[in-house]
Amino acid sequence: MSNFQILLVAGTHGNEINAPWLFDQWSQAPNLIDTYGLKIVKTIGNPLALNKGQRYLDRDLNRSFSNDLLNDSNINDQEICRARHLINEYGPRGKNPSQIVIDFHSTTASMGSSLVVYGRRPTDLALASLVQHRLGLPIYLHEGDPCQKGFLVESWPCGFVVEIGPVPQGILHQRIVDQTVLVLECCLRQISNSINSLANFPSHLVVHRHLKNIDFPRDHLGRPAALIHPDLQDKDWYPIKYGQPLFINLNGEVVKLSELFSSNEVVPVFINEAAYAEKNIAMGLTNKEVWEFDTKWIEAFLGILST
Amino acid sequence: MSNFQILLVAGTHGNEINAPWLFDQWSQAPNLIDTYGLKIVKTIGNPLALNKGQRYLDRDLNRSFSNDLLNDSNINDQEICRARHLINEYGPRGKNPSQIVIDFHSTTASMGSSLVVYGRRPTDLALASLVQHRLGLPIYLHEGDPCQKGFLVESWPCGFVVEIGPVPQGILHQRIVDQTVLVLECCLRQISNSINSLANFPSHLVVHRHLKNIDFPRDHLGRPAALIHPDLQDKDWYPIKYGQPLFINLNGEVVKLSELFSSNEVVPVFINEAAYAEKNIAMGLTNKEVWEFDTKWIEAFLGILST
Repeated sequence: MSNFQILLVAGTHGNEINAPWLFDQWSQAPNLIDTYGLKIVKTIGNPLALNKGQRYLDRDLNRSFSNDLLNDSNINDQEICRARHLINEYGPRGKNPSQIVIDFHSTTASMGSSLVVYGRRPTDLALASLVQHRLGLPIYLHEGDPCQKGFLVESWPCGFVVEIGPVPQGILHQRIVDQTVLVLECCLRQISNSINSLANFPSHLVVHRHLKNIDFPRDHLGRPAALIHPDLQDKDWYPIKYGQPLFINLNGEVVKLSELFSSNEVVPVFINEAAYAEKNIAMGLTNKEVWEFDTKWIEAFLGILST
Repeated sequence: MSNFQILLVAGTHGNEINAPWLFDQWSQAPNLIDTYGLKIVKTIGNPLALNKGQRYLDRDLNRSFSNDLLNDSNINDQEICRARHLINEYGPRGKNPSQIVIDFHSTTASMGSSLVVYGRRPTDLALASLVQHRLGLPIYLHEGDPCQKGFLVESWPCGFVVEIGPVPQGILHQRIVDQTVLVLECCLRQISNSINSLANFPSHLVVHRHLKNIDFPRDHLGRPAALIHPDLQDKDWYPIKYGQPLFINLNGEVVKLSELFSSNEVVPVFINEAAYAEKNIAMGLTNKEVWEFDTKWIEAFLGILST
């Protein structure tokens, strides 16, 4: 019998409560989700924060998986301890090892359903390609941002974040739960298909490559001095061009894309995301790219599956 | 010179950040809001909570103004101390006394803009009538709910809550700020008109009278066992009838209005409001009523204005 196992995580942020609720329902009714015969283990990322309805207690758990934090014995706050525990328990060399992790989040931004991959690991790109090919989801390729690191999925050899939105933090929403089930079952089905040599890999992968995060204009005390322009609010994934306004203040003065970034066209994501306000991110700017599918990705992915 | 003064409050809940941001902008640009020559004082209800981006620290400030809490010298948590401070500072017999208070909130529920009045004080009904006559806003009449008491505005002789939504907690939104300005200026204009004998009181007042709060169906551990039915989500203020489903679980089983409440037709409000999850309120049910305008309300209201 294969030792291959998939780790499913919900509630990495304690105020994103739909996936944790779904996991709970699933525990009570094991047939709720079709697991396609795969060995699954599921866990709540940050149970203490979930219990309090807060994103985190001491620091963002999904920025706590960098080696410098994990290996620093002087750092023992709640989230670092939890990160170490998750790795020791479910990491690829843990007590109950998993080789793939899927981490379920929600957004207040109008992102719909999407995948977030960190860097260009062939294993991630192979699985994300299969899910995109099936569901058409956009993929946010997060890379090259030294301010944002230590993501949970990076501690496993394969995995990504699933984002479902929009939903305010702290409420259960039928559409969000339904969409979470849809993406979860699709991921499991594509992994099962790959194990059984039934996967249908696409010829291309569409990624939205991270370029830069944009902060709100701020006054001399560091407070936001303008708002997301109404033409932009809720327009995640829609391309914007050089002269398009991003922000507007109460005098009607606008800040245009061209004042902040020199590019003819970018695609904004996480526009006005509540979780990113504290990180001084008003939106992320991405470049939409169509990549040829690389068959080496399959090799790497199948290597993981044959564990 | 008259001593009449209006207290404007924002950030009574620290994660409802649009009105506090507007107040801040207004402080920097005093001509931003037309105050119609009225004497105004504005304050942040719960600055410590606002600073942390949390609804409150120790307890809900907008349930902290009951006499039994205010007068109990053994209770000294953050919000009770803040409530006492606000009354001592701005209350009708405070150092800097105000006779009317308007308390600006936001909702995650799709309520649009509305007023919440507590009980049937003639002064509140007079002012709410004027605002409704001008803007057409629905009025939620909160009364007869022993579990919910100690609202801020009850410590002043006239005042109500303004709710603007939907907006997730913790984000600034141009539409919400705009709507807040609209309602704020309308309130001030109607007060000014009343002082100058220019007010045009309507013949009728439409209220949505509170009947009952409904909780989610729960399992034996107290966790929600079903979700707001998708036909009901975002349908605040739309009447629902006897057999209409309120909740649905993941097996597709529904809970109908008729199973929870015996009434032919009710109007739900605060459907799936994030702030009310902790209060075990999935929605409020109201009865829509058209009241004859009572000229005694004017007398009471003018009495306040002549302070």
